[in-house]
Amino acid sequence: MAARLTQTVVWRNLEQHRDELKAMRLQDIVLGEAKRLETCSLELEGLSLNYAFNHVTPKTIDLLVKLAEQEKLEGKRDQMFRGDKVNVTENRAVLHTALRQKTNHPVMVDGKDMLPEIKAAREKVAKFAGDVRDGVWLGATGKPIKHVVNIGIGGSDLGPRLAVEALALHAIGPKVHFVANADAYDLLSTLKGLDPAQTLFVVVSKTFTTQETLLNAQTARQWLVAALGEKAVQKHFVAVSTNQAAVETFGIKMENVFPMWDWVGGRFSLWSAVGLSIALAIGADNFQKLCDGAAAMDEHFRTAPLAYNMPVVLALLGIWQRNFQNISARAVLPYCERLRSFPRFLQQLDMESNGKSVTRDGEAAAYATGPIIFGDCGTVGQHSFHQWLHQGSEIVATDFIGVAEDDLNHADHHRALVSHMVAQAGAFAFGQTESTKPEDIYAGNRPSNILMLLRLDPYHLGLLLALFEHKIFVQGVVWNLNSFDQPGVELGKKLARGLESGTAPSGDQAAFLKGFFTRISRISKK
Amino acid sequence: MAARLTQTVVWRNLEQHRDELKAMRLQDIVLGEAKRLETCSLELEGLSLNYAFNHVTPKTIDLLVKLAEQEKLEGKRDQMFRGDKVNVTENRAVLHTALRQKTNHPVMVDGKDMLPEIKAAREKVAKFAGDVRDGVWLGATGKPIKHVVNIGIGGSDLGPRLAVEALALHAIGPKVHFVANADAYDLLSTLKGLDPAQTLFVVVSKTFTTQETLLNAQTARQWLVAALGEKAVQKHFVAVSTNQAAVETFGIKMENVFPMWDWVGGRFSLWSAVGLSIALAIGADNFQKLCDGAAAMDEHFRTAPLAYNMPVVLALLGIWQRNFQNISARAVLPYCERLRSFPRFLQQLDMESNGKSVTRDGEAAAYATGPIIFGDCGTVGQHSFHQWLHQGSEIVATDFIGVAEDDLNHADHHRALVSHMVAQAGAFAFGQTESTKPEDIYAGNRPSNILMLLRLDPYHLGLLLALFEHKIFVQGVVWNLNSFDQPGVELGKKLARGLESGTAPSGDQAAFLKGFFTRISRISKK
Repeated sequence: MAARLTQTVVWRNLEQHRDELKAMRLQDIVLGEAKRLETCSLELEGLSLNYAFNHVTPKTIDLLVKLAEQEKLEGKRDQMFRGDKVNVTENRAVLHTALRQKTNHPVMVDGKDMLPEIKAAREKVAKFAGDVRDGVWLGATGKPIKHVVNIGIGGSDLGPRLAVEALALHAIGPKVHFVANADAYDLLSTLKGLDPAQTLFVVVSKTFTTQETLLNAQTARQWLVAALGEKAVQKHFVAVSTNQAAVETFGIKMENVFPMWDWVGGRFSLWSAVGLSIALAIGADNFQKLCDGAAAMDEHFRTAPLAYNMPVVLALLGIWQRNFQNISARAVLPYCERLRSFPRFLQQLDMESNGKSVTRDGEAAAYATGPIIFGDCGTVGQHSFHQWLHQGSEIVATDFIGVAEDDLNHADHHRALVSHMVAQAGAFAFGQTESTKPEDIYAGNRPSNILMLLRLDPYHLGLLLALFEHKIFVQGVVWNLNSFDQPGVELGKKLARGLESGTAPSGDQAAFLKGFFTRISRISKK
Repeated sequence: MAARLTQTVVWRNLEQHRDELKAMRLQDIVLGEAKRLETCSLELEGLSLNYAFNHVTPKTIDLLVKLAEQEKLEGKRDQMFRGDKVNVTENRAVLHTALRQKTNHPVMVDGKDMLPEIKAAREKVAKFAGDVRDGVWLGATGKPIKHVVNIGIGGSDLGPRLAVEALALHAIGPKVHFVANADAYDLLSTLKGLDPAQTLFVVVSKTFTTQETLLNAQTARQWLVAALGEKAVQKHFVAVSTNQAAVETFGIKMENVFPMWDWVGGRFSLWSAVGLSIALAIGADNFQKLCDGAAAMDEHFRTAPLAYNMPVVLALLGIWQRNFQNISARAVLPYCERLRSFPRFLQQLDMESNGKSVTRDGEAAAYATGPIIFGDCGTVGQHSFHQWLHQGSEIVATDFIGVAEDDLNHADHHRALVSHMVAQAGAFAFGQTESTKPEDIYAGNRPSNILMLLRLDPYHLGLLLALFEHKIFVQGVVWNLNSFDQPGVELGKKLARGLESGTAPSGDQAAFLKGFFTRISRISKK
């Protein structure tokens, strides 16, 4: 067991501090400090983190920063940015930040400067997106493209999907759809009513072997070929992939393949050519602004002192709650319908990165790691699971996300949204400890952050997404995890191949699974 | 503290039994029992519960059933069915089961038989849905209705939304849309491209005062009136509500108001006229089949011996995991794209019902109650948070939901779906405890159920939904909770009214919230 971390002086000081604070209710901490709102907020170019509703005092932040220093956060951060192979299990650099870098500093990977390739890919995406949007690129029958179907799963789906939904007011290009699930209904219901002659498929798979993506791509290809013939494939399919041979076999021309690199993980890949569907929806200039927002957060993360560094503070608050307050879940509640996919996006980003129990040194972690991430839009959740958040027997921490500017000209709706968000945070924190009816008692003491965007535009979305990327990195450093692999997805794939292949199972476990599969499939024969 | 339950002999026997089983890994329990698959499955008319992958032996089930008996489950069940006021805080009967009852037994509430009203409402829904679908009901300019917009939130949204999505292959009527959020984007993006002359709004709010619903209804009304004038309102708006005065003021004719009753809770209301949008989408006959499926589950729940009673066993397995194995969350993973809203539906149904810490006797519960419910569709989640499910530092229990019949004629997609589902369940249970690489170790020991539907049609969906309704009831009985109120949503509403009204705050807490609201709203002025 990797128990070093929990035996350090700083960790023990944090435990002692936690015990000291235990007697204090959250409302006493919040109301007891003058200028609490000012002290507990950080702002960067129109994105603010407001953490007043946490069980923290200035001393807590001080101790947490010491923990980060002890775990050599700044050095490890710099290692990531300069291209060291911080993804140790896969022996890879982690350079999604290079995809949005504004300077001309070389990006060295294995002795080679990747910046020319990065720039060339960005220009290729911009050129192609422009051609489709301007009607320069035409379908096989000479018609312009009106619908784009992005076929990908996981990181090849959730990031682009979120960005396209969130920036819907900036979308004046073709309508972009997303298909991910192996269930054929996902693709078939998307294709319903689309004209093959005006539909473009973007197939996103680094290896071009992802089972779900290939199933969907093949079924989409049949749909297109049935309408327009084999030759049409090259005008209606492009790919983001490194497997040029497989892509060519599929019928996509080399010049219509966009690159990926092994130093960009799937869940961090929307900034690469995986963002092609974003550029198709909102245009290359807006896609650039999205990257610029992320770059501004990168610069802040690289240079701001730890106690005023937004991703660092957000991460340390999470560690405080996870490891010292024993809170095992975070609710993520965007009070903004266009951010409805943010909880799902963050589920992948966070749970796939830090949902691990083995340290970078190969030992079992002796402490809790990444929490459950779940959530839904406010105010919808208020009429659903918020009952549980307020009065359930478990305390979770909440991240609210709000938008200050009303860009829909519906002040009454907008004021309701923001009021409810603050009111929920207040109710979580303060509770209602006196009432004649027992069922109207709220224990309170439930911590939350409010993240506030000045407005929902590409730049501010870029700030928000990079904030969470770096938050997760910081937590991975403190927990000594490799946040950049995902070994836990392999076993299920292997077992599924065994079931699908129909070969005789070897071993008791495989035989049991085969029996289970047969039994529940057989139900349909009755 | 209400500690009676945990001091009973049966509870202590369960604790002791848990300790005895602790030494056994799940795989040993699963593989050690002959006919495990047969023993650990229950089936009712094409819906099966397969619970082989739980840390249970026949003795566990026996002890859990004793717990249910001790808590007088059967008597309390019968009280609910016969209309006793089991919603004690609100002094109301709980009779959603009466809405789908097939017999002519009287449904007595306060000495009055409600069956005639129930039947009349069902017929009114059927008649209206038929008229709209057949083009008998026309818009103000004489055109048939092509789009229906259901405006409601919580139970007036999630149930109908799930049913309409799940039964999409049965939908040949007008296209039904759902708008819930106070965020104007929800409504505005739905209305985009719709023709007012062919759009019907169904406003669902028992009190007709639900803030979000009224905001959306008023904005929708403005949109309609701007195009077609005031007089068109009566041909384009109908309501499901008990507040006839408010509905009439809005401009809806009395004859176009559908009833609700205070003995049907919002989250159990899709079987009532709240299901009007379902009937509009799939037709009254299919809506009836949905109700018939639920009625079959009701009958099973009322009559089957506890150890073979599907909702009872499902509930007791959950109690075993929550209270004896200390598992605080359940992942709900439908391997079916049309059931993508099922996790959100269940979040409300379960977390709003049992997310409480005060017993029916008004004491603080001395034991854990309802868990976190979260999830997403397989196979999508496999490329996201399943990493955490397999290797995270917390163990959760999983409910898989699969469909046996491929109704899309895409056998390759369908086989992949079912194979992956069984493979994930196997990987959770068995893990992979030997590997040369530490990151490839899976601890296993993660319990799951597989619920399998013969096919995804109205009848089987009805079975599934009623299964979970009754599961939650059973858990509420054992935990001695009132599963039918939602007192925890009131405080936030009250605080939000204070912020929205703009009146001077009274008290430190209100002043702090006002300052917070002002501060984060001000960000937009920069």
